[in-house]
Amino acid sequence: EIQLCGCMLPLTGDVDLKHQAKCSPTFMDNFAVNSPTGEMNATESFIHHAMEIILEDAVKKATDVREKVCEWRSPEQLKELLDLELRDKGESESRVLQYCRDAIKYSVKTTHPRFFNQLYAGMDPYSMVGSFITEAITTSLYTYEVAPVFTLMEDTLLRKMIEMIGWDEGGDGIFNPGGSMSNMYAVNLARYRYCPDIKEVGLFAAKRLVILTSQEGHYSISKGAALLGIGTKNVYIGAVPFMVNATAGTTVLGAFDPIEEIADICEKYNLWLHVDACWGGAALMSKKHKHLLKGIHRVNSVAWNLHKMLMVPLQCSAFLVRDKTSLLQHCHSARATYLFQQDKFYDVSYDTGDKSVQCGRKPDAFKFWLMWKALGTTQLEQIVDRAIAMARYLAQEIKKREEFQLVIEPEYSNVCFWYIPPSLRSVPHGPERWKKLHTVAPVVKERMMKKGSMMIGYQAHGDKPNFFRMVVISPQVSREDLNFVLDEIHNLGQDL
Amino acid sequence: EIQLCGCMLPLTGDVDLKHQAKCSPTFMDNFAVNSPTGEMNATESFIHHAMEIILEDAVKKATDVREKVCEWRSPEQLKELLDLELRDKGESESRVLQYCRDAIKYSVKTTHPRFFNQLYAGMDPYSMVGSFITEAITTSLYTYEVAPVFTLMEDTLLRKMIEMIGWDEGGDGIFNPGGSMSNMYAVNLARYRYCPDIKEVGLFAAKRLVILTSQEGHYSISKGAALLGIGTKNVYIGAVPFMVNATAGTTVLGAFDPIEEIADICEKYNLWLHVDACWGGAALMSKKHKHLLKGIHRVNSVAWNLHKMLMVPLQCSAFLVRDKTSLLQHCHSARATYLFQQDKFYDVSYDTGDKSVQCGRKPDAFKFWLMWKALGTTQLEQIVDRAIAMARYLAQEIKKREEFQLVIEPEYSNVCFWYIPPSLRSVPHGPERWKKLHTVAPVVKERMMKKGSMMIGYQAHGDKPNFFRMVVISPQVSREDLNFVLDEIHNLGQDL
Repeated sequence: EIQLCGCMLPLTGDVDLKHQAKCSPTFMDNFAVNSPTGEMNATESFIHHAMEIILEDAVKKATDVREKVCEWRSPEQLKELLDLELRDKGESESRVLQYCRDAIKYSVKTTHPRFFNQLYAGMDPYSMVGSFITEAITTSLYTYEVAPVFTLMEDTLLRKMIEMIGWDEGGDGIFNPGGSMSNMYAVNLARYRYCPDIKEVGLFAAKRLVILTSQEGHYSISKGAALLGIGTKNVYIGAVPFMVNATAGTTVLGAFDPIEEIADICEKYNLWLHVDACWGGAALMSKKHKHLLKGIHRVNSVAWNLHKMLMVPLQCSAFLVRDKTSLLQHCHSARATYLFQQDKFYDVSYDTGDKSVQCGRKPDAFKFWLMWKALGTTQLEQIVDRAIAMARYLAQEIKKREEFQLVIEPEYSNVCFWYIPPSLRSVPHGPERWKKLHTVAPVVKERMMKKGSMMIGYQAHGDKPNFFRMVVISPQVSREDLNFVLDEIHNLGQDL
Repeated sequence: EIQLCGCMLPLTGDVDLKHQAKCSPTFMDNFAVNSPTGEMNATESFIHHAMEIILEDAVKKATDVREKVCEWRSPEQLKELLDLELRDKGESESRVLQYCRDAIKYSVKTTHPRFFNQLYAGMDPYSMVGSFITEAITTSLYTYEVAPVFTLMEDTLLRKMIEMIGWDEGGDGIFNPGGSMSNMYAVNLARYRYCPDIKEVGLFAAKRLVILTSQEGHYSISKGAALLGIGTKNVYIGAVPFMVNATAGTTVLGAFDPIEEIADICEKYNLWLHVDACWGGAALMSKKHKHLLKGIHRVNSVAWNLHKMLMVPLQCSAFLVRDKTSLLQHCHSARATYLFQQDKFYDVSYDTGDKSVQCGRKPDAFKFWLMWKALGTTQLEQIVDRAIAMARYLAQEIKKREEFQLVIEPEYSNVCFWYIPPSLRSVPHGPERWKKLHTVAPVVKERMMKKGSMMIGYQAHGDKPNFFRMVVISPQVSREDLNFVLDEIHNLGQDL
């Protein structure tokens, strides 16, 4: 029947006569080119059922503190539980809905109040709804004509963020698929400003260029240096520096480079100063904490992720540049004529696509715009203030308990600490103790994941053995959750 | 009240006593760190209402052929219609829902049966639902521990796609935010294979490297060359070629480079052969049309977008590499210890994040996986076969009508054609006629958008004046829609 009427949805049992009559097939390549649209009802019912599952399992249950953070299965077990195989024949609606339930069930609940494993957490209903709309509308931000609403919303947000950074003369910017991309944009713009010819002729005749950053800078700067033909070895040392990367909120410790002092040097030597504020940028929302980024109005570019502390669903990441010479456009443009016709009937400066190194680009800004409208700047500020206050509360609790030790006094919402099991308390400080301490966090992590009670990241850092890194983000996290975290680590690790 | 109880949702009117009692605030930085969770009901109701709007406006109405494709407003008009400003105070639920309705209303309906403006169109309910789930679950594909389900689904899809390409010995791959990124990955891997040292030391001491591609190749190859420090001028000419980019399905004409012949040369000279199959890769689903990519099993890497002809909501783009030496990992890795601990309790080969140049990465594969489960290979094949059959039908109709002229016989589902208004029919062939013809498509486009009746792309190409490029994708498009397109263009342009 499918071949005959050319519709995509399978006809079951008796073929509807009315349906057949509507078809009166025209054949092309032995394939009918007609299409009835009567099956929309089945589609609607499927979407409706799926939305119920999403609301129940992925929203309500996933954020319920009484539920597990994760339903741990090893790759081998999970492969058996999920029927992963892709077949020739499509499966029934009820099977597909079951796949949806299973996908949610075995996924980690990153919106759960006890998920502290990454620099994102919590659930904001407004930006989540925004994300559903952008997915349903499915468009790309290259031209105003295909994304008029989202183009204007992105523009609104970029202006607002530039204002918060303090670039009084204005600037430019673009939303990217993540902070790594935003940091790479900074490397590329800094290089372009240093020598625009590199865009056309490459680096082959260039002097060796280097990027200066701290050991604590995010690895995306190294990845960017590798990708952009600068080389990872040119991130720290010698030759002609063309860019300095300062970090506002490092990944592990949550530390902030002193932007004012770095800006003094960069201004003196005319170096591009980029601030990777992917994690720490949220502090700009807070009157109380924005001092952490003091001097940011003096820098050339900023990477700022809204999908971290500000809770927009992944991805929502802005790159902002203090520039009025269309550097973003000049540096990245390829002037594709099939998209960026200059004889259009509207102001083509609203076609932002050629500022990107991508072609298609998701309208991520809408999610943040809708959230901002709903919460207002005031409540966004409270998300940040509360997250940092929670981190301070946790640090205070850690200091009260002899089985815990802070790695460093928190500057932001990262709280890095060791759990010291009773067996280790009598071991004198020295290599032996550190070696044993190093094995504690991985075992506690394994146990918490298999239990599903919470998720917290851990890592070694410099010469320091494995420690936990807690980040508090979600407004759903209560004091009780933080007390639970410390109690639970002790429960899981006291026999070690 | 907000400051007192520390919850994020505004309390209106009388403060709930039970709520207050639950709080018993602990203060930190003058900020209470407790959080009640009782407001979840308000959140649920908002999400529920928003979902109704999405189903009604963004799904049903957006795909209804009787509705307009777009509700055109100029940037200035749209700024007035939308209340874009972001304020200190959050706005009410009913206002926020109205913003959702407005955002949908003034967005272009890319899923409408008469949207032909881009290389994506149509609405597949399964992948759309998949996208809602990935947004609600909001996680990132760096490690198995935070994205176990999606890691396995991506792996399943990559294997399946590699099988379809015909790499019998297997391969590797990764989903990217769009085809431009996938093409850039190819440039980077080709360069890495040519000289792995470039990752560390950059291009400064390297011989001038060049990429070979055709004039019809996508602009992402040039953008990639610029970004990667190779330079756009090194895309066509001289020096040491290290990579050839073949295109399977060009953007404008839908043309396919002869892969077999190019592979012969690349094998002879040991050049990396990449196929940009972002648009044409869908033909691999079709027994009837996969000959268009004959020889693809011999190439080194392939970029293949599922968000084009296969209708997954943007973004869903795979990069695939025929390699068993972990080139993707070696080329892109930065070994961040805070994510990729080697002392984890599970098989860390499931932590795929270090294969990416990004850090966070969306689980786009799930959308395609769910769609494939629901439709089966058979119906995916029919999407492609039907789209190409529809294009042939349209080409046939164009040939029947004296006011239309094909630019080139379609090879795929792109149909490029001119509309020749009556006033031009008597103008003899030559520069005068072409100059006038060049002005026709932009005016017809302006009129169709202001009317909202359909959307079709146009562009000039080489020495050819502006012509329309139709692409048929959505199974909702019927023969009647194609007839309508030709009738409507004639209606809109006959006075020109």
